[in-house]
Amino acid sequence: MATAETAQRADPAELAARTREFVREVVLPLDDEYDGDIAAAGGEGARVRLQDAARDAGVFAPHAPVELGGHGLGMTDRAAVFEEAGYSLFGPLALNIAAPDEGNVHLLAEVATAAQRQEFLTPLALGTQRSAFAMTEPAPGAGSDPSALLTRAVRVSDGWSISGRKWFITGADGAGFFIVMARTGGEPGGPDGATMFVVPAGSPGLTVGRHLDTVDRSMIGGHCEVTFEDVVVPQDNVLGAVDEGFRYAQVRLGPARMTHVMRWLGAARRAHESAVQHVSGRDAFGATLASLGMVQQQIADNEIDLAASRALLLRACADLDAGDRAASQSTSIAKTFAAEALFRVADRSMQICGGLGVSAELPVARIHRELRPFRIYDGPSEVHRWAIARRAVRRVAGARV
Amino acid sequence: MATAETAQRADPAELAARTREFVREVVLPLDDEYDGDIAAAGGEGARVRLQDAARDAGVFAPHAPVELGGHGLGMTDRAAVFEEAGYSLFGPLALNIAAPDEGNVHLLAEVATAAQRQEFLTPLALGTQRSAFAMTEPAPGAGSDPSALLTRAVRVSDGWSISGRKWFITGADGAGFFIVMARTGGEPGGPDGATMFVVPAGSPGLTVGRHLDTVDRSMIGGHCEVTFEDVVVPQDNVLGAVDEGFRYAQVRLGPARMTHVMRWLGAARRAHESAVQHVSGRDAFGATLASLGMVQQQIADNEIDLAASRALLLRACADLDAGDRAASQSTSIAKTFAAEALFRVADRSMQICGGLGVSAELPVARIHRELRPFRIYDGPSEVHRWAIARRAVRRVAGARV
Amino acid sequence: MATAETAQRADPAELAARTREFVREVVLPLDDEYDGDIAAAGGEGARVRLQDAARDAGVFAPHAPVELGGHGLGMTDRAAVFEEAGYSLFGPLALNIAAPDEGNVHLLAEVATAAQRQEFLTPLALGTQRSAFAMTEPAPGAGSDPSALLTRAVRVSDGWSISGRKWFITGADGAGFFIVMARTGGEPGGPDGATMFVVPAGSPGLTVGRHLDTVDRSMIGGHCEVTFEDVVVPQDNVLGAVDEGFRYAQVRLGPARMTHVMRWLGAARRAHESAVQHVSGRDAFGATLASLGMVQQQIADNEIDLAASRALLLRACADLDAGDRAASQSTSIAKTFAAEALFRVADRSMQICGGLGVSAELPVARIHRELRPFRIYDGPSEVHRWAIARRAVRRVAGARV
Amino acid sequence: MATAETAQRADPAELAARTREFVREVVLPLDDEYDGDIAAAGGEGARVRLQDAARDAGVFAPHAPVELGGHGLGMTDRAAVFEEAGYSLFGPLALNIAAPDEGNVHLLAEVATAAQRQEFLTPLALGTQRSAFAMTEPAPGAGSDPSALLTRAVRVSDGWSISGRKWFITGADGAGFFIVMARTGGEPGGPDGATMFVVPAGSPGLTVGRHLDTVDRSMIGGHCEVTFEDVVVPQDNVLGAVDEGFRYAQVRLGPARMTHVMRWLGAARRAHESAVQHVSGRDAFGATLASLGMVQQQIADNEIDLAASRALLLRACADLDAGDRAASQSTSIAKTFAAEALFRVADRSMQICGGLGVSAELPVARIHRELRPFRIYDGPSEVHRWAIARRAVRRVAGARV
Repeated sequence: MATAETAQRADPAELAARTREFVREVVLPLDDEYDGDIAAAGGEGARVRLQDAARDAGVFAPHAPVELGGHGLGMTDRAAVFEEAGYSLFGPLALNIAAPDEGNVHLLAEVATAAQRQEFLTPLALGTQRSAFAMTEPAPGAGSDPSALLTRAVRVSDGWSISGRKWFITGADGAGFFIVMARTGGEPGGPDGATMFVVPAGSPGLTVGRHLDTVDRSMIGGHCEVTFEDVVVPQDNVLGAVDEGFRYAQVRLGPARMTHVMRWLGAARRAHESAVQHVSGRDAFGATLASLGMVQQQIADNEIDLAASRALLLRACADLDAGDRAASQSTSIAKTFAAEALFRVADRSMQICGGLGVSAELPVARIHRELRPFRIYDGPSEVHRWAIARRAVRRVAGARV
Repeated sequence: MATAETAQRADPAELAARTREFVREVVLPLDDEYDGDIAAAGGEGARVRLQDAARDAGVFAPHAPVELGGHGLGMTDRAAVFEEAGYSLFGPLALNIAAPDEGNVHLLAEVATAAQRQEFLTPLALGTQRSAFAMTEPAPGAGSDPSALLTRAVRVSDGWSISGRKWFITGADGAGFFIVMARTGGEPGGPDGATMFVVPAGSPGLTVGRHLDTVDRSMIGGHCEVTFEDVVVPQDNVLGAVDEGFRYAQVRLGPARMTHVMRWLGAARRAHESAVQHVSGRDAFGATLASLGMVQQQIADNEIDLAASRALLLRACADLDAGDRAASQSTSIAKTFAAEALFRVADRSMQICGGLGVSAELPVARIHRELRPFRIYDGPSEVHRWAIARRAVRRVAGARV
Repeated sequence: MATAETAQRADPAELAARTREFVREVVLPLDDEYDGDIAAAGGEGARVRLQDAARDAGVFAPHAPVELGGHGLGMTDRAAVFEEAGYSLFGPLALNIAAPDEGNVHLLAEVATAAQRQEFLTPLALGTQRSAFAMTEPAPGAGSDPSALLTRAVRVSDGWSISGRKWFITGADGAGFFIVMARTGGEPGGPDGATMFVVPAGSPGLTVGRHLDTVDRSMIGGHCEVTFEDVVVPQDNVLGAVDEGFRYAQVRLGPARMTHVMRWLGAARRAHESAVQHVSGRDAFGATLASLGMVQQQIADNEIDLAASRALLLRACADLDAGDRAASQSTSIAKTFAAEALFRVADRSMQICGGLGVSAELPVARIHRELRPFRIYDGPSEVHRWAIARRAVRRVAGARV
Repeated sequence: MATAETAQRADPAELAARTREFVREVVLPLDDEYDGDIAAAGGEGARVRLQDAARDAGVFAPHAPVELGGHGLGMTDRAAVFEEAGYSLFGPLALNIAAPDEGNVHLLAEVATAAQRQEFLTPLALGTQRSAFAMTEPAPGAGSDPSALLTRAVRVSDGWSISGRKWFITGADGAGFFIVMARTGGEPGGPDGATMFVVPAGSPGLTVGRHLDTVDRSMIGGHCEVTFEDVVVPQDNVLGAVDEGFRYAQVRLGPARMTHVMRWLGAARRAHESAVQHVSGRDAFGATLASLGMVQQQIADNEIDLAASRALLLRACADLDAGDRAASQSTSIAKTFAAEALFRVADRSMQICGGLGVSAELPVARIHRELRPFRIYDGPSEVHRWAIARRAVRRVAGARV
């Protein structure tokens, strides 16, 4: 994400402040009206309108390269901006920093050729096109264990032919192109042999199927089944080097996990602040709810969980910005902690709001609903803990387990 | 609930076994097809069909007096039956033991006059009519603190005139009558002066308003706003004695909390068993998911939480059946523990099912969604803990706090 | 434990009430004076005096067969009595129901020959002798995985010769005899081939070594290293059948785990009640500590944890009394839950007592100290969870993992 | 703590590395030999020897002003050094950064007059004298609520006469002087009217009484009762301004809480690393303990808790170094989280070490024992949560509760 034109970069604090204002004035009303359901709010039409407004407000694409109209912020600098965007469930979409596009911009900026940048990165960064990242497969394929990858790509005269079945592909419906992980070598279960391909929507043999009916509703384009039946792409559509796909996936996943944390941090903060507002204005048992010890305990625990998530996030961002190998551990730790802590924040906020907390009257229930999958998406907590423990054993005891 | 005709009562274990079979064969298919959304499944029409089937299967109304066609089971005996019914989100409705009707049957059987039994209890027990219990009010009225009751009833020549606003009234849309809590004396915040009235649907001045958009979707008739504007009922519609409403509410609430626990215990068990089935058939990292330690930990914790919820429930039921004063504490403890433990069960089940766990592909996500409000409905955990602590201080230290 | 002479059995409730009184009047003063340190309180001399007093009070040996002077209570009936005894850290010793003697009485009553009963069970039940159970070995021997058993017994002309090294052998210092688990067949790691031997103290080759310096101090005779160097015992000292030791260990361990729960339940209840007394008499921030919400939450959680531990315990005792196979699961669940819950009770009690809670001024700190190892002794929580999960997978999915 | 002579300050990373080496080579052997019991290890004699060794190693007094022989590190810079010192329970004493002396150095450096610096700060910073901070009183005096302060100081012709009773005064036995909090105005319960006095040991009327028998044993000079009976000190011994004592207490407490976190972070890390070493070398059930999922989960959770504690600590240190008002909230959050998280680390470490974990064979049990009071000392978690919640309500809702 580095660029020479640092002079044109936004001041991160100022950009965060403007983002906060933009989100409150422009984005939250739509979010609240449609209870965070992007399809109900208008889907693609809503996206275009929100992104236009973000461009007008000068807060569009804080992460994208400056030469592509973005603000060129590194990981540490973008944290506060993304958190402000995440304060609304539609905020990341408005700023063009929602998953999976945001992570795909990062990946393409790192590994795309000049032609690929032109064809795929530019429209993505500008918001004229959406994208998807097609890795996850139904059992027994690539799930929490990516090495189980079953989708295959074989060389054909005019490039590669891809066949396989994916699902839970976020944003697939309406995406302009797909970054597809397919096996070009090795065996399922092995650590090697995956390659990334860019596949334009509309390619013959590519079908976007049903939307899986998941609990969240704020992600545009759904979580879809996508099948590839002898989908042929030219050699130029190989992303990076053949057989290096698992390594690139890591390039994408470390930062992508952290930007997830940033966005969900904003959402959890909104749940918390809504709840604090609520209990500050309600009486029960002869006192303000906010003066009751058991309510205060939940408010305090929310403050602690938010602060700890943010502190771990910034530690990991510093490692990523520095290119430090420690980032493997610190991003796993930040993701695992935040995914659990931020859901706890939403859950306590729900609890102290009582009946209103489980209704659409307040934004809390919808944030609770949207946040839960984060403990599963981008590596379930269990897989991260496994990796964290193994690194600890290696560091402390020099042993491999 | 006691009846002399014990000879006609069902054998509880046998009734539970039949209920299990009925639920699996008749009810679960509908539940699964419509993702636990009773309105989508047909609403009132679905209710009638399911209840007819339950009558045919001989499992209808396990709780209702024998003379009204029920099985006359006491609290302890009904526990296993209700749990089996709760295995499907639609099971309680099928057996006519869903909230609020089930609790209203209990209340009416305890305090109704002969005429009231005839007019209200009988159709309710038979399933020819539904009902609602109208206590909760918007702030600053009766919420987690019932004594804040604002709805008022004043004597008029031909009985009582009731005015006030209620919300979160479960089952209101389509109910044949409402049991309404209104203030006839005392002041908001005071411990006395509430009276219960039975108000038929269609009474002039009674309006069932919008459905609050809550996270759960399995309760027929929604959670509605209900307004009373000078709704006049005759003296005969007073339930029990004037000014004794808070005491009757306790009569209803203790057992009602326990039957909630029974039903949700069944739902949580289904989430758990679905998850165990899922992980027993999936491989990752070269092994069955069910053989991984972190998955086993969650399975074991589910078993523990289910067993502890059931053990506390049966302890409280024994106290209720014995008419023991200890039931105040043991029902509070069982409700508080179970509401939290059963949600944990659903949450762990969701987690170990991965992406499928947050989708409608498995029943887990819907059970997670339906279970969450139980920590708030029928007394939030915080209010129960407050009561539990105060009783402990009184018992141990002889002090009042 | 069944006996024909039921007429002579104590009424369990009455015996529990007398035990409560005895413990408060006779045992607690010594416990408090010496901060629960049995060696400081006089060790063997204290044991003799306390047991004499218990005999005088008619509360001695509630568990032992009636023909040996005990009260002959089954598992369910003894629960309340043992809990009352456990209210003091020295109470179980006073009633002769401390580990490991209590479990050894149970084991011998089940499997000993008439001669073995005479020689070993009788003095143990009467309190004229103490005993130890020698199973645990240093790594790589039998630890949380008993099948790793390394101590070997080989046939010699005059019986068996036992060699091996044990540690963490509770009560070894001063024990009259040892029940020793030794390998007579199979291989370390295998499920078979262990045999139990009774080895009298003073046998040539038997050495009781150093006391391991563990955090608890209330167990008489310490947790010792014990070595066996060609210790020869006659064939008559084989307990039960050769190669059946692992099976007998289960006979002993299921009930022994439950009596642990009973005793620690009493101790945890004392910590809780001491804390409730403390906070009911203290003011801070203008109010009684017991009126503060965060304190009430901890009191309530203690009440819940105590109630749930007791309910799970009684469920498991009913299974054990009925000889139900379900007891494997229910005792594992009760042990695992209670070991964690009761420590939480002690920990919260400590917390709400502030500085006094971590001092010897109140009994809380010592109970906290004594309770912690229970999550490790008699099967660490992790091993129990592993077993619980595997049984659940088998029951629900018919699979073995 | 700022000083102009920054040129002479140590490089923090280099000082941390040297501290690590010093602690491992010089301090840990003594710690391990005496199980972290400073009295058993020689008390004052051990302190002198350890501090001499620290001076020789160039790691003495990282916090003290450069002109007094210290390294002059600010809060952020000292974090890693203090953590390395805390890796041994005796490390902080060796470096002269143990409580309460370390906090008293900070306080005196902020508010002492030149004469007071000469007489009290200099010998304290040099390690030729120890000190105590006498604030806590028995009920109904100053406990978790400092405003309940009962000790009084009244003006007399030659200065002030102090009378009152303190307890839990850490380091009192052997202290060269006491910083005493006494009421000079206002009323118990009020927010004003406390003054700090420096009282030399040996002053007539000053008695250091019994040591309270607390669970920890690593703090030199115990936790003592101290009584003041008409102890007269001259006006020059007033620390700062009269009636400003509560404000100065905050000056001391914010940083003191953070240095506690630093030290305990080191101790908890040692428990964790000892446990990881242990499980990496042990087999059970056919595998290394470190390869079992439930063990890995605990290792991972330890890594997460350590990382989160450290991240929150550094956030608060940055606020303190910047003189930012946000430090009130961030130090409360860091203290509350770390006190609970670090005990969890010790507790999990204990658990995965099994029987050895609750014995003196490994350092884990002693760290578990020493860490527990931190959730109570320097403000119990409940008081911090109360303050955290109130600040949140004020910030979010503009309300005071």
